[in-house]
Amino acid sequence: MTYFVSANHSVRYHGGRSWPPVILSAALRAVRLHSDFNFILCGDRSVIDPELAKLSDADRSRVTVRHCEDVIAMTDSPSQALRHKKDSSMRRAIEAVQTKQADACVSAGNTGALMCLAYYLIKTLQGIDRPALVSFMPTAGHHRVLLLDLGANVNCTSEALFQYAVMGSVLAEQMLGKQRPRVALLNVGEEDIKGNTLVKMADEHLKQVPALNYIGYVEGDDIFTDYADVVVTDGFTGNVALKSSEGLAKLVVNEVKKQSSSNLWSRLMARIALPLLKSIYNRVNPDQYNGASLIGLRGIVVKSHGNASADAFYYAILQAMQEARLRVPEQIKSKIETVLLEQL
Amino acid sequence: MTYFVSANHSVRYHGGRSWPPVILSAALRAVRLHSDFNFILCGDRSVIDPELAKLSDADRSRVTVRHCEDVIAMTDSPSQALRHKKDSSMRRAIEAVQTKQADACVSAGNTGALMCLAYYLIKTLQGIDRPALVSFMPTAGHHRVLLLDLGANVNCTSEALFQYAVMGSVLAEQMLGKQRPRVALLNVGEEDIKGNTLVKMADEHLKQVPALNYIGYVEGDDIFTDYADVVVTDGFTGNVALKSSEGLAKLVVNEVKKQSSSNLWSRLMARIALPLLKSIYNRVNPDQYNGASLIGLRGIVVKSHGNASADAFYYAILQAMQEARLRVPEQIKSKIETVLLEQL
Repeated sequence: MTYFVSANHSVRYHGGRSWPPVILSAALRAVRLHSDFNFILCGDRSVIDPELAKLSDADRSRVTVRHCEDVIAMTDSPSQALRHKKDSSMRRAIEAVQTKQADACVSAGNTGALMCLAYYLIKTLQGIDRPALVSFMPTAGHHRVLLLDLGANVNCTSEALFQYAVMGSVLAEQMLGKQRPRVALLNVGEEDIKGNTLVKMADEHLKQVPALNYIGYVEGDDIFTDYADVVVTDGFTGNVALKSSEGLAKLVVNEVKKQSSSNLWSRLMARIALPLLKSIYNRVNPDQYNGASLIGLRGIVVKSHGNASADAFYYAILQAMQEARLRVPEQIKSKIETVLLEQL
Repeated sequence: MTYFVSANHSVRYHGGRSWPPVILSAALRAVRLHSDFNFILCGDRSVIDPELAKLSDADRSRVTVRHCEDVIAMTDSPSQALRHKKDSSMRRAIEAVQTKQADACVSAGNTGALMCLAYYLIKTLQGIDRPALVSFMPTAGHHRVLLLDLGANVNCTSEALFQYAVMGSVLAEQMLGKQRPRVALLNVGEEDIKGNTLVKMADEHLKQVPALNYIGYVEGDDIFTDYADVVVTDGFTGNVALKSSEGLAKLVVNEVKKQSSSNLWSRLMARIALPLLKSIYNRVNPDQYNGASLIGLRGIVVKSHGNASADAFYYAILQAMQEARLRVPEQIKSKIETVLLEQL
């Protein structure tokens, strides 16, 4: 099984974390721990080679380095990336998936460029208009919920919402091991009278599909209550829901840290509580849920946070591996066919 | 100065909190503490009168009870509420604002019905197409940020976003005491290339208005970082941002509570940390930010959470009082005129 890591240069320009140690160390960890995978690392050979020397001979034999001259910067527009950066590490990684040399690609680079390159080179599955960005979120009771789309499409149609529901259902079935995963539409109220036109149309459509376990509307706070396994929304709303909940989690944790420098009693409480708070934060922190999959393509593409830690980037690699093992694109293809046949 | 509390029956049917004690006790607390206000309570006289007996004669002299036969249920559609419930407590409360008998109305009833009644009876200010629902959110550094729209309009135009920006700016100036409050548009990325059509058009428009201190795009997590004083978005996205961040805050707090019943060490840590965590939760908890104002109308309407506690409902009353003192609708009217003149 061939596995593909895009050690994307452009990460250097984003978030202040030092590239390449973060991405490379995560990749080398994956090489060491998963001997059933081969790896192709794309990037500057002069940076990658010295790190590879740290691997055992057996491990190194499963790694191919593909030297790339170009770098897609965080400020490059998707069209610039597509037209002018033919030898970028990101493009080479995606091309490897396109040509079936690799099963999956992981990148922490420019999201817009990644989505654009993946869409044009790998193409979407039949029946899917646009890929969606999907990630796991924490819920009560240590379950996980899939939220999509997280920003692949900011101008969305009700048909796209319907396709997200199908894809999310497959992913929850495969990755969470759920039988007939509960699929919900994100809305501003649970009553039928509420919601915008887009959501109402998708709701009507989803009600008519026996192949999906569609449970109706949920509100923003229900994302975290284990009410649904899959929460479907447009890319604009999904991105805002993801980031605003991350923002609040950070606010809570920062507040605790600040208390440590307040009066003695608060300081003591905070000091004692810190391990507990950290364990809670670790459950809700974005790192652990790093690795947003771009699904609906004829191949696997996982997007890591641009400023991910080595641990977080490793989670993204794990996610890509799991999708490759479970053959997620094939599963989605088959489900879409079932659903489309049902509607004939 | 006349102040108007709608002791709305329908709350009884929602959220499981016992009406009327919650709303009535909040109202009576407001009566006792704010002798510069008069109050009109709408609802079932047989329920309200016994409670009023607890007030001193002087306080009671500032309260009028308006008996209403009808109740708008949480399941009533806005049009049902408008057409068929002519003697509902909510309608009577809004009519009092419409006829200038009252400066403000507070209700914890059916949001859709409240917005619909307020829109049709009180009407919007000239230059405002639709009212917006706005609330304060916590940010780092104990500041507050205004987020709007929270769901008054789920099908939104770029012109509406522009009007929200103007209204939000006035509210931040008046209620937060900010000079030239920083107004931002909620988007999925800070780069100009990102965003949906709606947001891009509003961005273009806002850049051309010197009367506003427009600072560009923010992402979901920036709501809580004190980067802006006003964050503008459509009602669908705003509602999801509000509720998903509330949902995550609840998840964190519930997680701590659960730890209390885990092993001894965790239990001890959680027990010690609980006061600290509660103080943090109190800062982010929705109760404290209860009281979403419906702005853009020719009068003041404040919406309380349907399952608000007495404290939370009291906050909503306080907010309505402050808006009445500051004459917020007049301030918005004047700002809108300035902005429209600038654009001639």
